[in-house]
Amino acid sequence: MESWQRFSVHYLIQARSGAEADERAVNLSIEQTAEMPYEVIPDALKDRFTGHVSICKEAGKNLYEVVVSYPLASTGNEMTQCLNMLFGNISLQPGIQITGIEWHSLTDIFPGPRHGIAGIRDKLNIYNRPISCTALKPVGLSSSELADRCYRMAKGGLDIIKDDHSLSNQPSAPFSERVEACMDAIERAADETGKRSAYIPNISGDSFETWRRYEIAQKLGAFGVLLSPQLVGMSTIKSLSDTDDSLPVMAHPTFSGSFVMHDSHGFTPELYYGALWRALGADSVIYPNAGGRFSFTDKECERINRALRYEASPFKEAFPAPGGGIQTQTIGEWMDRYGADTIFLIGGSLYQHKDGLETAAREFQQVMESYE
Amino acid sequence: MESWQRFSVHYLIQARSGAEADERAVNLSIEQTAEMPYEVIPDALKDRFTGHVSICKEAGKNLYEVVVSYPLASTGNEMTQCLNMLFGNISLQPGIQITGIEWHSLTDIFPGPRHGIAGIRDKLNIYNRPISCTALKPVGLSSSELADRCYRMAKGGLDIIKDDHSLSNQPSAPFSERVEACMDAIERAADETGKRSAYIPNISGDSFETWRRYEIAQKLGAFGVLLSPQLVGMSTIKSLSDTDDSLPVMAHPTFSGSFVMHDSHGFTPELYYGALWRALGADSVIYPNAGGRFSFTDKECERINRALRYEASPFKEAFPAPGGGIQTQTIGEWMDRYGADTIFLIGGSLYQHKDGLETAAREFQQVMESYE
Repeated sequence: MESWQRFSVHYLIQARSGAEADERAVNLSIEQTAEMPYEVIPDALKDRFTGHVSICKEAGKNLYEVVVSYPLASTGNEMTQCLNMLFGNISLQPGIQITGIEWHSLTDIFPGPRHGIAGIRDKLNIYNRPISCTALKPVGLSSSELADRCYRMAKGGLDIIKDDHSLSNQPSAPFSERVEACMDAIERAADETGKRSAYIPNISGDSFETWRRYEIAQKLGAFGVLLSPQLVGMSTIKSLSDTDDSLPVMAHPTFSGSFVMHDSHGFTPELYYGALWRALGADSVIYPNAGGRFSFTDKECERINRALRYEASPFKEAFPAPGGGIQTQTIGEWMDRYGADTIFLIGGSLYQHKDGLETAAREFQQVMESYE
Repeated sequence: MESWQRFSVHYLIQARSGAEADERAVNLSIEQTAEMPYEVIPDALKDRFTGHVSICKEAGKNLYEVVVSYPLASTGNEMTQCLNMLFGNISLQPGIQITGIEWHSLTDIFPGPRHGIAGIRDKLNIYNRPISCTALKPVGLSSSELADRCYRMAKGGLDIIKDDHSLSNQPSAPFSERVEACMDAIERAADETGKRSAYIPNISGDSFETWRRYEIAQKLGAFGVLLSPQLVGMSTIKSLSDTDDSLPVMAHPTFSGSFVMHDSHGFTPELYYGALWRALGADSVIYPNAGGRFSFTDKECERINRALRYEASPFKEAFPAPGGGIQTQTIGEWMDRYGADTIFLIGGSLYQHKDGLETAAREFQQVMESYE
């Protein structure tokens, strides 16, 4: 690491005038670094160890675009400390939204996906079309009941079957027992159909439990793992993905909504679920699709997709995995709009099919495979 | 765990009518549990494994108080899964704020502080008055420069000297070297003054690094550790505090502001920094004080204090640690308002004193010890 190297971060800041914006920008750049009155920062550190405001310009009514460059040395090459610098104490000030991060300087800290879109396609042996995915649910079913659902959806030919993010290690379906039962179900279906669906268990748990479940998933031959970064810690994916035989990670947005739900605070959805989670190492990122029971607009979803696949990023491309409100009847339109490099999550509506899960899965899969 | 046992969670929900509120409340209770259309939830699970809306009543203009009881069995006795149930997918829906959690049913999951106010007082041997605390900073100083500051502030008699939350393991002051140097500084000062200040290093780091730094801090005799829950993972404190000789944990709010910055979304500040972080196991909780450079009001701060010390809670009481804008000139007023069971963080203003750090620390400490 060059000791004088810097990286830039973009913000939108609310202010009533250019002068106020300038003041807020400078305060931000100090708050996130030295965090003390400027005049008492040691002279030797003033230049080198503080944030520098490089741009502060009007971007709308009472809104200013601010670019701050931070000293790379202050990250200590750690993801948590880097996030602390980007949006630490200032997360507690109103009217500050982080909109962009210059990733090219941060590739020693953020790994990006180990597998990415190309790696997942190779592992699935599926090219040139979107990927189907559904969730095993609900919590409360036994491992064998969940495995039975898994079997029927695998028989229907779905590409990926993942745990619902609420399946952890409940007594109703303990983790090891559930993964074993579902892997058996996948094999049985594969023996009958010739196609092996991918199974992705949810490993999110308390502290070391997450790593323990990861190891069980790996040992039992799961295709990948589901993880909720905002529950288990932002650096967890990196710690799981440090070997070539590591499993692809699908990231789930539970508990993270507060970061992206506000126009003038937090992160933009595309920076958070798109660029940041890709940088953390997620190979695919679940987010709530437009038109479902959540609140992102079409445009926000398209921006998330673009950030996950953005080719000029230093990281491998990651799969967007929109979910919520997707149905067999409407999936054609979403495929046209989002394109081949998408994992489409279908949930509840499969269970509503009058002819049962296997048929529902098969019909959804047929649409997916008709993609041109 | 009784398999039918439930726990209640309180929300404020925005809705334009009572009927819409009822619908939103029921949708929330299903979203956070079965997460599928009600009619396809297996009959055997409908009652036992879904959330039940027990109260939905008007609480203001377009605002409804909603109480949902959740099945305890669905938590699997895990903190992360419990948080997932409380505010998981619904964190991605607008106009939902979580305002209360019934902790008495959750004591197998959340440990609360191991030491708490009484334990910290015993370890410090300070009773009946507030505790002083300052932060070593800025990032960029060497370990010996930071230790020199630590020495001077300890000579001035401050009760607690903690790392700034931005000191991690940077090359300028690597963790082990810094902790060792600061512990030496504390001892030197103690030899001269007869009073041993408490030193609290920041252990927040990427994944396993946090536990490694905890062990170093413990081995080198640190008084406690500083940790940022929203960076390192919500269950980390619990995993550190499982033995009687574990160190008190001071929790830092960096990166967490998005959860509490909005009137109609996320958590109330007193639930988040007060009740929740106390439940996670924080022995003291730093939050941005009113009147400083952050945005909490006096009332919000007093509510956080109350939640941390609330006697009817099943957990030990935790110290509020307000910081930001506190000065020797104004501390008297804050002591009167917040009372003895408070840790007051003084930062930048100590460094501005014309006669240097030791004098600045001594003057602040004198006010603290004058508390009656």
